[in-house]
Amino acid sequence: MAPQDAAVDSGASAATGGEPRVNFATSPDQYNHWNLTIDGNVARLAMAVSEDATLKPGYELKLNSYDLGVDIELYDAIQRLRFEHPEVGCVILCSDHPQVFCAGANIRMLGMSTHDHKVNFCKFTNETRNGIEDATENSQQKYICAINGTAAGGGYELALATDYIMLIDDGASTVSLPELPLLAVLPGTGGLTRLVDKRKVRHDRSDVFCTTTEGMRGQRAVDWNLIDEIVPRSKFDDAVTERAAEFAAKSDRPADAKGVEFTPLNVSGEGDKLTYDNLSIEIDRASNVVTFCINGPKEVPPADAAGVAAQGIDFWPLALARELDAAIIHLRLNENQLGTWVFRTEGDNALVEAYDNLLEANQDDWLVRETTLYLKRTLKRVDVSARSLIALVEPGSCFTGTLLELVFIADRSYMLDGQMEGSNLPAPTVRLTGMNFGPYPMCNGLTRLETRLLGEPDLVAQNKAAIGNDLEALDADDAGLVTFAPDDIDWEDEVRLAIEERTSFSPDGLTGLEANLRFAGPETMETKIFGRLSAWQNWIFQRPNAAGPEGALKLYGTGQRSEFDKKRV
Amino acid sequence: MAPQDAAVDSGASAATGGEPRVNFATSPDQYNHWNLTIDGNVARLAMAVSEDATLKPGYELKLNSYDLGVDIELYDAIQRLRFEHPEVGCVILCSDHPQVFCAGANIRMLGMSTHDHKVNFCKFTNETRNGIEDATENSQQKYICAINGTAAGGGYELALATDYIMLIDDGASTVSLPELPLLAVLPGTGGLTRLVDKRKVRHDRSDVFCTTTEGMRGQRAVDWNLIDEIVPRSKFDDAVTERAAEFAAKSDRPADAKGVEFTPLNVSGEGDKLTYDNLSIEIDRASNVVTFCINGPKEVPPADAAGVAAQGIDFWPLALARELDAAIIHLRLNENQLGTWVFRTEGDNALVEAYDNLLEANQDDWLVRETTLYLKRTLKRVDVSARSLIALVEPGSCFTGTLLELVFIADRSYMLDGQMEGSNLPAPTVRLTGMNFGPYPMCNGLTRLETRLLGEPDLVAQNKAAIGNDLEALDADDAGLVTFAPDDIDWEDEVRLAIEERTSFSPDGLTGLEANLRFAGPETMETKIFGRLSAWQNWIFQRPNAAGPEGALKLYGTGQRSEFDKKRV
Repeated sequence: MAPQDAAVDSGASAATGGEPRVNFATSPDQYNHWNLTIDGNVARLAMAVSEDATLKPGYELKLNSYDLGVDIELYDAIQRLRFEHPEVGCVILCSDHPQVFCAGANIRMLGMSTHDHKVNFCKFTNETRNGIEDATENSQQKYICAINGTAAGGGYELALATDYIMLIDDGASTVSLPELPLLAVLPGTGGLTRLVDKRKVRHDRSDVFCTTTEGMRGQRAVDWNLIDEIVPRSKFDDAVTERAAEFAAKSDRPADAKGVEFTPLNVSGEGDKLTYDNLSIEIDRASNVVTFCINGPKEVPPADAAGVAAQGIDFWPLALARELDAAIIHLRLNENQLGTWVFRTEGDNALVEAYDNLLEANQDDWLVRETTLYLKRTLKRVDVSARSLIALVEPGSCFTGTLLELVFIADRSYMLDGQMEGSNLPAPTVRLTGMNFGPYPMCNGLTRLETRLLGEPDLVAQNKAAIGNDLEALDADDAGLVTFAPDDIDWEDEVRLAIEERTSFSPDGLTGLEANLRFAGPETMETKIFGRLSAWQNWIFQRPNAAGPEGALKLYGTGQRSEFDKKRV
Repeated sequence: MAPQDAAVDSGASAATGGEPRVNFATSPDQYNHWNLTIDGNVARLAMAVSEDATLKPGYELKLNSYDLGVDIELYDAIQRLRFEHPEVGCVILCSDHPQVFCAGANIRMLGMSTHDHKVNFCKFTNETRNGIEDATENSQQKYICAINGTAAGGGYELALATDYIMLIDDGASTVSLPELPLLAVLPGTGGLTRLVDKRKVRHDRSDVFCTTTEGMRGQRAVDWNLIDEIVPRSKFDDAVTERAAEFAAKSDRPADAKGVEFTPLNVSGEGDKLTYDNLSIEIDRASNVVTFCINGPKEVPPADAAGVAAQGIDFWPLALARELDAAIIHLRLNENQLGTWVFRTEGDNALVEAYDNLLEANQDDWLVRETTLYLKRTLKRVDVSARSLIALVEPGSCFTGTLLELVFIADRSYMLDGQMEGSNLPAPTVRLTGMNFGPYPMCNGLTRLETRLLGEPDLVAQNKAAIGNDLEALDADDAGLVTFAPDDIDWEDEVRLAIEERTSFSPDGLTGLEANLRFAGPETMETKIFGRLSAWQNWIFQRPNAAGPEGALKLYGTGQRSEFDKKRV
């Protein structure tokens, strides 16, 4: 069954251990929880959570609290705003609830959820919030937040992902991060990092703020830089409109371009194989492996940005980004037993290169820029996926430029040296393009090649000089691009053993290992969120003080208090 | 009972939940596990672990494997080499075991240990390894590693902490990090970070290395930069001696200075109070709080470096560093229920300032440099302690310069505004000194003041201009130096409530919160080790796949294999 078929499959799946499968495909006409309106170059995205439209039974989404279903719609809206609305330069994130902006992640839902659901939920919401910042920073579609009531926990974390936070000054509207005192867990979607690193709130003030259940408001919230502006209730709407207009006026997004509608993906499922137009994923449940096979473009690219616009949603790089994105988020949440992802490609290196050259040459076009940014975000999703990644560069493959990034990401890559005996396909080659040298930074701010070759910066320069060359396996090995280059005698055994070995290891150990090895070099807010904050949160999510039968997450709302084990670890 | 009284108290302590108390005080004549010899300007520190001299019963330290007791001796040796041997410019870390350099942390010990012991053990060993790097980088006492056999797991991690790794090239001697495949945990003492960030080994090669149980050797180990040099067995000792001589010759440490002997600390215990010469720690078990009271110097400092040398081990900053260090490591391991540390001082701001000025003016003297570096490391221990830190600036206190760092570290600080009613002590003041502006970087590479004022860099400059001024509470508050400045009417309630509230929160949540808020700004290898790697390891240390009754840590050596839960989280 394809993941797009229903909001949530009604039946539980064996693959997800009894959890219902989650569907990530939606559209504004199906939204349960958000009102999206456009007025000229300003969009208004208002949270209006339907209490009963939950992803799973057993809880109600009161007070604009959210579950993963709410965030899936938010993600969809953000993506559509970028592509379907080139005219929008500013997005007002707000609430249509009369008293509450957002009460954060639903606590009953968290208390009922498995450890892996909580962790995956946080990862997806983190990526969505990073996407908001990416829109502000790189798409010139600036997000501001208009808080007209309580913004608690994840609600305030959502506000922190915007670039300008306005709070109604009515003596009642507050911002807060009450997770620690109320629930014995951390704010799980980047709040701590954004407080001290993005907004640079002093650590002792952050400590006070994060241990004050009732939160902060008024001038003190401004003085501590928790928010940017307070406005009296009577003037709030006007002030928000005014700010949004100011910000939108500074955007370079085109007023007259035609948006690209995100039509439903064309996907069909048969057994354990899902087939998209440019991608298939095939599952081997016996070995817990899923193989991605990406098809390169079949035709030469359009000549220019106008041609890209004419192709719209069918433009190969954009179509591929959407499909890859959909496959990744589906597999992460719905197929968490499949610990190893194998990447293969089929196609023509020259055609991939031609598309890359087109992307590189037209970065000043809004749609090409959006497409590149979407590919960047999707590749970053792969980087932070808690899965072992293996790339296989075989005859007939097209690991060039953008697709070569998957080889650089991989924990292991194998490239066949020479031809396969008995086949007349030529030996595989890879090609570097300009897209390997800047447009796709990892969350550490470096390109994958810079990260990979941190100890050999000269090799980065040498590789840049080799853009466009066909590199056979031994050349690619010398250039530091692949892990191993076995010949056809060793290929099958070596690859099979690597995959078999991987599936024999502890999944938790692998997750920690990969998270530590993949991101050498400098750190950024994003690496702190995924590398540090998430790891601490994962730890706390398992501690009896939070998640045990008498833990704070379980007892919240019952009137009982947790008796904490006082040991500091 | 004072923690220095016996190697391990024979009786179990209520405070440590039945775990025996660990004593950190030792000296070379008491070492069970290390042979330390000095030859001119080169020291040889050889691991020779006594199998039976374990910290706890139930395991044997075979093959130069180690427990915390082995690392306590290593820490002692490193400290003494810095202070007692100014002539030593290079230290050869090696093994006196005939086949093995070091087999890493003892696995049976890990399998038997509580979660908090494992975590604390890793933290202490991490700090010791960071201390090795600090000696190399800042004391011009360079550590090299001569591996004459197997260096596995923590054994190779120890080697990674040195600056030059030599491996005997005999076809049998290897380096390895087999934790993941063998034990389903991560290398716990910085190995992953040092691989990819210090030695800049490519992430895919690191992945191969960390999943290859048997490790690597020979030329490939050099090519992958896992080690620096291979030498045939017949030439190994000569080559090591030669390299050590080369490195030692480049050191600026004095050949003719008199070392400062680390005589036993003078400490007495009475009930729940420990009293050192310049520090007391007092425990309130009802509220799980320990109060540090630091006594400022009683006399003016010596006039110059010669005077410092004459005072030697009694030089106030050095004596204080040793006492504070001892108190911290004791409390962390032996008193893990005491979740809140309160810092108080008593003394004369002018005298503390005079000592700071002496330290600042004599940084080219080896002993002053060592003393400053020791204070730096000790303050860093406070930063990474999993305890809530509260500083109280009261009348009669001397939070100046070096001691003011404790106010900057604190998760909360309170400074009394004005006098206490009924007391004739003047209102408290604090003073900044040059020592607040460089010599004590945190592990993020910034000073505590820079980290604290990340969003207000101008305020750092203003504070620098105010060096030497007496700042009352409201001035200190304006300058961003303290969290709150209540007057005597509010003082008692406000402080009491803050401490009471702290002790009501979940200790795990606080640990995660503090670890995320304290280290804004850039990241370094150290912040990655303490912030990221440790958090992942903590998480994995709790996962059933590693630590459960059928987990890999428990089953290791039994011949049984763990059946892992395959879910990726």
